[in-house]
Amino acid sequence: MRKLEKIVSRKENFADWYTSIIQNAKLIHYTNVKGAMIFQPNGWAIWESIKKVMDEEFAKHSVKNLAMPILIPFSEFQKEKDHIEGFSPELFTVTKIGDKNLDEPLVIRPTSEILFCNYFKDITNSYNDLPIKVNQWCSVMRAEKTTKPFLRNSEFHWQELHAIFSSPQEAMQFTTDILDLYANFVEDFLCIPVIKGEKTPWERFAGADKTYTIEALMQDGQVLQSGTSHFLGDFFAKTYGVKFQNKDNKQEFVNQMSAGISTRIIGALIMVHADDNGLVLPPKIAPNQIAILSLFPNKNPEVRQKADEINLLLSKYRTLVDHSDKGIGSKLADQEIAGTPISIIVGKNELLNNEVTIMRRDTLTKHQVSINEIEKTIDELMIEIKNNIYNKAKKHLDESIVMVHSIEELKEVIKQNKIAKAFFDGSEIDDKKIKEMTNASTRCIFDLSQNGECFYTKKPTNKLTIFARAY
Amino acid sequence: MRKLEKIVSRKENFADWYTSIIQNAKLIHYTNVKGAMIFQPNGWAIWESIKKVMDEEFAKHSVKNLAMPILIPFSEFQKEKDHIEGFSPELFTVTKIGDKNLDEPLVIRPTSEILFCNYFKDITNSYNDLPIKVNQWCSVMRAEKTTKPFLRNSEFHWQELHAIFSSPQEAMQFTTDILDLYANFVEDFLCIPVIKGEKTPWERFAGADKTYTIEALMQDGQVLQSGTSHFLGDFFAKTYGVKFQNKDNKQEFVNQMSAGISTRIIGALIMVHADDNGLVLPPKIAPNQIAILSLFPNKNPEVRQKADEINLLLSKYRTLVDHSDKGIGSKLADQEIAGTPISIIVGKNELLNNEVTIMRRDTLTKHQVSINEIEKTIDELMIEIKNNIYNKAKKHLDESIVMVHSIEELKEVIKQNKIAKAFFDGSEIDDKKIKEMTNASTRCIFDLSQNGECFYTKKPTNKLTIFARAY
Repeated sequence: MRKLEKIVSRKENFADWYTSIIQNAKLIHYTNVKGAMIFQPNGWAIWESIKKVMDEEFAKHSVKNLAMPILIPFSEFQKEKDHIEGFSPELFTVTKIGDKNLDEPLVIRPTSEILFCNYFKDITNSYNDLPIKVNQWCSVMRAEKTTKPFLRNSEFHWQELHAIFSSPQEAMQFTTDILDLYANFVEDFLCIPVIKGEKTPWERFAGADKTYTIEALMQDGQVLQSGTSHFLGDFFAKTYGVKFQNKDNKQEFVNQMSAGISTRIIGALIMVHADDNGLVLPPKIAPNQIAILSLFPNKNPEVRQKADEINLLLSKYRTLVDHSDKGIGSKLADQEIAGTPISIIVGKNELLNNEVTIMRRDTLTKHQVSINEIEKTIDELMIEIKNNIYNKAKKHLDESIVMVHSIEELKEVIKQNKIAKAFFDGSEIDDKKIKEMTNASTRCIFDLSQNGECFYTKKPTNKLTIFARAY
Repeated sequence: MRKLEKIVSRKENFADWYTSIIQNAKLIHYTNVKGAMIFQPNGWAIWESIKKVMDEEFAKHSVKNLAMPILIPFSEFQKEKDHIEGFSPELFTVTKIGDKNLDEPLVIRPTSEILFCNYFKDITNSYNDLPIKVNQWCSVMRAEKTTKPFLRNSEFHWQELHAIFSSPQEAMQFTTDILDLYANFVEDFLCIPVIKGEKTPWERFAGADKTYTIEALMQDGQVLQSGTSHFLGDFFAKTYGVKFQNKDNKQEFVNQMSAGISTRIIGALIMVHADDNGLVLPPKIAPNQIAILSLFPNKNPEVRQKADEINLLLSKYRTLVDHSDKGIGSKLADQEIAGTPISIIVGKNELLNNEVTIMRRDTLTKHQVSINEIEKTIDELMIEIKNNIYNKAKKHLDESIVMVHSIEELKEVIKQNKIAKAFFDGSEIDDKKIKEMTNASTRCIFDLSQNGECFYTKKPTNKLTIFARAY
């Protein structure tokens, strides 16, 4: 293995810290195609862990997985003006198969609305066929000028959920149901508190009537869009002719939604929880929840045996046993970087007292536990660690949101690495101007229940809006 | 939904039967890109079921999953002559990003040896780093002139396992270990008996020193290559410079293997087990192992309740409950086409006797079972069904292999829709001539333990070889 590079501290340089965590934890490896990255086993295991949980959540909503092709005929894109305008600068285009030039180019999917529409069109006849709710886990490609691991890759992995309904109400309901599912998943499994809200019209997905988002706050005060759910109305249905026969035997266009969470969320996982020693993974999502580290197992067969017994005892957890020749310092450092929630050290001396040492990754504290108590202790610790990680992030979020009433206040708040909430009723141009002045822009409208005055235009409005710097 | 087309019988037309099974069971849906197909939820669920089991088997061999990029620079391909010759007529090439033409084209991976080699090169320093065993589940693209669902798609899904070792012995051992893993998986989980053997030199993977294969017999007498494992030696290592420092501090090339099973195996699953009524899925791999069908559940709340109770009772199985308004005939037909191993019919009359009706998909037989006995009965039935499906296929295979000693005998055997074994020591040209005369060609050399005379060249040889028509 390459020698570990030192992890840069967050204070020193947050961006370098982020990259050095990814490198030291062996999450991503660069290739010689710009923006194309290898998800190494440690990084991919986190994504597979996320997939497993989300699939279970989707199944509760009767969503089924399928797989669409990678390529879309370019002519299909041209059918829809707004959609193609949104994506054309980013498209990877296949113009050749073997040594034959294609009459019609094919593009690598940047998203799959078109593929799903054409599929829905073929399999939908009457209202009896609806709703149809399907999802795929795949990678998509959108050319990026500047790339950043997890956050901005030209190829990234995601799940894209697509569903069609008889009525706009059902489609809208499912749009917000999935937003809630995302928020609950991210908060419960990833321990990341989020702000739920609606995107401004100019921040909507190309072709959407409404785009909802969950936004999370990183340790550096920047915000990361962590999942989106789009109400598409009959926009795509009209272009691609997706109709159904309603109960009155009349043809109607279907009502559609789509939603996605991508590998960006792993970037959030790092920037919300990790520290200067490495990753800190929430127990529910950690590929290894417990590492059992034996002290000189080859000299002490009883240590090796006891470690294996403890492993069996904890078989309901995802465990890893390290019986290698390395010293205990090195074994612990491996788990620290990897973010394993709990390490159990099994050594000869402790065994004399029928004890082991337990190390928590979140607090980096050690304590002795009797082997008889180990299962109970671990059960309790897992909950404690989960709560501690979440509460720490929640405290940071709560303390970071400041109400502002003027552009000067907004500037000041952003300068302090915080985020602002404000009544806002401005336009896309206003948003751009505000960004030029403050580095912050609208993230989402999260509350419509109060009345106030727009901090920028001074018009009356009920749109309580989050402004922040964003990834 | 589209009206079901009638399933063509196997006798009538095997190829049409195959396609009509896929259509009626809703496994695959065509798109407007040639050779690109949608894996519908029913088809994709089978593949996800296969993935789950194989991942568990791979983990026992310390294989870890990762994800490589879709695109490979064309210049990387040009480094290796044989490899590029093998694949260049089939490559999909990206020449444009946005409106910018690329100086260097990128190809969509037809396989990923090059990507893995470049990765291995970066992460391998010394013998301590070896072995490295990694796997990815992905799709690859190879242009096909004539396409056929599952068997010949331009885009197909597979797992590709790649591993590097210090010694050729270890690499070779792992090559055959994975072949054994494939054979056991296909026989145990898919209930498909296989012939294990080595490919002739001219049938090897482009760049391999040796290619091993498992071959399965379809109901029409044709054979399908169902998984391959390649010993690559240091062929790719030399081209891509993958070296390690050995124990004597000297630089050596690594020893490599790769192996894969693709979505073709679903084609085998159909052509080995399905009948004129639909799919017949082996219990261990069926996405739904049991369907619980209630008779008029809306008129009879006690029927609905009992069906739900039975569902809970059988929670260790993957179950599906059909409480829809459809008649029981229609509900059973759905499960027949889908190949669900066991259907349980819950009706009002049977409940009076505390009974349900159980229907086996493999034999299409029904019988009554007391609800008290249901768990035990199902446990036994699952084993019985598995054995019955396997034994039927095994009997077909055993009865189909005929020893031949001349080209006339080979012709005759193939005409009878059987497969031949023969001592064979011919060349690639001989193999081609034999194919012209008989439609059959070498599938694999499966036994070297006996001595005999080549049926074609009359030279002495120990290569007992399978000849068959093949997909």
